[in-house]
Amino acid sequence: MRGTVDFMLGSIRESPLYPIVNPRSIAFFGASNNSAAMGTTLLNSLLALGYEGTVYPVHPREAQVQGLRAYGKADDLPEVPDLAVLVLPTDIVCEKLDECGRKGIGHAIVVSGGFRESGDEEGRRRQERLVETAARHGMRFIGPNCIGVANPHQKLNTTFLRYEGTPGFIGMASQSGSFVTQMFGYLDQFGLGFSTAFSVGNEANIDIVDCMEYLGACPHTKVIALYIEGIRRGKEFIEAARSILSRKPIVAYYVGGSETGKQAGFSHTGAMAGPDSLYDGMFRQGGIIRARSMTELFDFCSLLGTMPEPAGRTVVIQTHSGGPGAEAADVCGRVGLQLAELSKRTVEALGSMIPHTGSIKNPVDVTYSKNPLDFFDGIPRVLLEEEGAHILLMYLLMPTESVERTLRRMGVPKDRVGRERETFINRLCDAMVRFLGKYGKPIVGYTYRSFNDEFIQGLLARGMSVYPGPERAVRAIEALVRYYEVRKKMNETGD
Amino acid sequence: MRGTVDFMLGSIRESPLYPIVNPRSIAFFGASNNSAAMGTTLLNSLLALGYEGTVYPVHPREAQVQGLRAYGKADDLPEVPDLAVLVLPTDIVCEKLDECGRKGIGHAIVVSGGFRESGDEEGRRRQERLVETAARHGMRFIGPNCIGVANPHQKLNTTFLRYEGTPGFIGMASQSGSFVTQMFGYLDQFGLGFSTAFSVGNEANIDIVDCMEYLGACPHTKVIALYIEGIRRGKEFIEAARSILSRKPIVAYYVGGSETGKQAGFSHTGAMAGPDSLYDGMFRQGGIIRARSMTELFDFCSLLGTMPEPAGRTVVIQTHSGGPGAEAADVCGRVGLQLAELSKRTVEALGSMIPHTGSIKNPVDVTYSKNPLDFFDGIPRVLLEEEGAHILLMYLLMPTESVERTLRRMGVPKDRVGRERETFINRLCDAMVRFLGKYGKPIVGYTYRSFNDEFIQGLLARGMSVYPGPERAVRAIEALVRYYEVRKKMNETGD
Repeated sequence: MRGTVDFMLGSIRESPLYPIVNPRSIAFFGASNNSAAMGTTLLNSLLALGYEGTVYPVHPREAQVQGLRAYGKADDLPEVPDLAVLVLPTDIVCEKLDECGRKGIGHAIVVSGGFRESGDEEGRRRQERLVETAARHGMRFIGPNCIGVANPHQKLNTTFLRYEGTPGFIGMASQSGSFVTQMFGYLDQFGLGFSTAFSVGNEANIDIVDCMEYLGACPHTKVIALYIEGIRRGKEFIEAARSILSRKPIVAYYVGGSETGKQAGFSHTGAMAGPDSLYDGMFRQGGIIRARSMTELFDFCSLLGTMPEPAGRTVVIQTHSGGPGAEAADVCGRVGLQLAELSKRTVEALGSMIPHTGSIKNPVDVTYSKNPLDFFDGIPRVLLEEEGAHILLMYLLMPTESVERTLRRMGVPKDRVGRERETFINRLCDAMVRFLGKYGKPIVGYTYRSFNDEFIQGLLARGMSVYPGPERAVRAIEALVRYYEVRKKMNETGD
Repeated sequence: MRGTVDFMLGSIRESPLYPIVNPRSIAFFGASNNSAAMGTTLLNSLLALGYEGTVYPVHPREAQVQGLRAYGKADDLPEVPDLAVLVLPTDIVCEKLDECGRKGIGHAIVVSGGFRESGDEEGRRRQERLVETAARHGMRFIGPNCIGVANPHQKLNTTFLRYEGTPGFIGMASQSGSFVTQMFGYLDQFGLGFSTAFSVGNEANIDIVDCMEYLGACPHTKVIALYIEGIRRGKEFIEAARSILSRKPIVAYYVGGSETGKQAGFSHTGAMAGPDSLYDGMFRQGGIIRARSMTELFDFCSLLGTMPEPAGRTVVIQTHSGGPGAEAADVCGRVGLQLAELSKRTVEALGSMIPHTGSIKNPVDVTYSKNPLDFFDGIPRVLLEEEGAHILLMYLLMPTESVERTLRRMGVPKDRVGRERETFINRLCDAMVRFLGKYGKPIVGYTYRSFNDEFIQGLLARGMSVYPGPERAVRAIEALVRYYEVRKKMNETGD
């Protein structure tokens, strides 16, 4: 790849975003003892996650804010903090940013709205003044009109909702703040989390390309997710993507793909949405995997961040029920994945484990009749050893109640059934995950059970991807395969 | 519509399926005191749901089975039961069906496999013998190779897994037993349930067309769901569908749509899958709404079974976050739904409730700033009164934790916060549901919250459809609109 070296950060610390998501201290403007205020909510999100740096609330009148010592103005602070967060009325944002600049604070998050996104001349001029103020002091800032950032690895969350779940591996840059802060709980359901997430707002100073470069260099980020309403620096966007491609995948959802989406995106941040074909071309040139919705965006991230490179497009489906197997096969065909033909060796090896009512074809339909443990041990082992199959797709059904019934049937006393069930399910989960390491082939699950289910949660907690239904699983597999195909092609041709 | 009258049941009691899903008494073959046996599991599902009719286990040796008095053979039974359930080794099924016939039992469910689906000559001949035996006695049966039936309104469930949830309005006929029994918990998550569900198995005597006629006449069934691997009586299938069309919608998922799906379906039940275009034509002629997956099948059923006829294809989107609104708008455009233009009257009425940072366009983006109660009362009221909008699509986000924080902020003492939260959320849910009745326009929700969320569960329990993400919501809306368009067209042209 030519001409992309400039876009790789020599060190993550060179990024203007480094102090913004790894600050040792923060000056917080706009929080108060009025707990209904937006600024207070954001400060409380930060405190709730247990941020370990120093927080300095800045407030013109209060001596204490949310239990912390407050300061009247930036100049009163006992040190120069790494970062200022501004959640202030539109009118005073510029003046306060200037105050921060004079104190020597180099970086800021401007949450306040009322700038270019308002669509009027006044908003446009206000934003210009903000940019000029920052430039005068050599400051870098994210926003305005953003919801802040989250870096759960540093216990940092300056957004509206509390961070739920554990730190993860998805690096996100979003032109909608909701798709940062309102996704915490969503991702947690699927055992996922953000490494770092940026709400970029109006991108007056730092833009989505800067975020991509940061996330490309971020060691916690295994895959980058983008929510896009419009890209301004198209050339740089493509070049940044290409420079990241060989290290980690990028997935993007562009909301302006339809006429109605374009209008909606435009009225939201004032970003210039372009024709769908233009964005499709940009994504292709950048080697970016395109998602059709937010659900798909994170579905793709899940597999891309956890699974090894598949050697090809050929899937083997393991099920104990005909219908769910047939449905998975149907979707594979529709998205362009192949079903493996089983070798003679595989068919023979399965013969001893699958009853005559089962089907030793692909989908491999085990039925209910034999030892249920084979489903999680002997059979996947044989299928992972099948040379013609590059990916194992498994239907998962293990209702807690059925497990308990089986244990009682085996003579486990009633008061020990709960604990034995846990042990049993943990052992199954461990076995599945061992296979992942051993064979280096992607293993993907799908189920119609609730994601509260103990078995499903056990697998997710161990880093296996499980999807609600085969369609989402298969589309994610296709994205995984496609990323490695694109990467290989770009590496080969240098193009 | 001509020539379809013959296919409408004069009374539901005329259907051969009536005694099968409304039996007053059941002879149960194949259950024992070995709780690992398939038959025992099925009997226990029946007992667990609290079936109120009489169950007669028939067993050659046991005097009692699962706590019930058992009988050595059909002839020993003290009455002629309405139904026999046979979960027996393949070899003795025919002989036992004959025994039932001689006793005068008119209806049976044959769960046992090893018939035509085995793909060999012996299986084919076995199935022929079964059909001849039934004919000799004038018996009607469902199966063989099926998982049974569920009619939760009658506390009847003869399938593998226990019935979870409450009786519902989805009538299902499925060529996969898994898509009956393994969907109980799945549907319950979304506040849905079966009215009656049939696993049709090999359809040796009663087939999917018979099930459609029954469900068409069933008063609990508001929408019919079909899982199809192959249709044998094509002409009758279309005619049955057309005769039902004006009373209730039918949604179908055909798994043989792709080459890989066709192969998988074939090896599963031995049904003859046909070219996708053939099925597409049959569905079109029958006025059947086609789904692309099981997830979509039930998504469509949810709206079709709960919402009134929309007057057109025009949607108004209500959100308090730009991104989720833009995503919904994007999907609307992609599936061919229009976004309403808001009238001057609507814009003025919204003006007092939406802050200047919000957007009074469509999507209506309320933002966070004003009274949160307006989001569930004043604003939807105005949008439902907008004449140009036929459907209201709402983004829903009401984290329990945020509600509690708000209540504490309002001065509610700590020990009363939990109860106040419940009251508050219940009131919101009631308000939403009142709108449904008042305006007669479909109201559909989408969220990225977990479906455990109290607010989401409250809405589902009141019969409102909520989807995980806008894409599934919008596709279901499009199916709802399409059903009424198709129905209208067929009524007009008689074609």
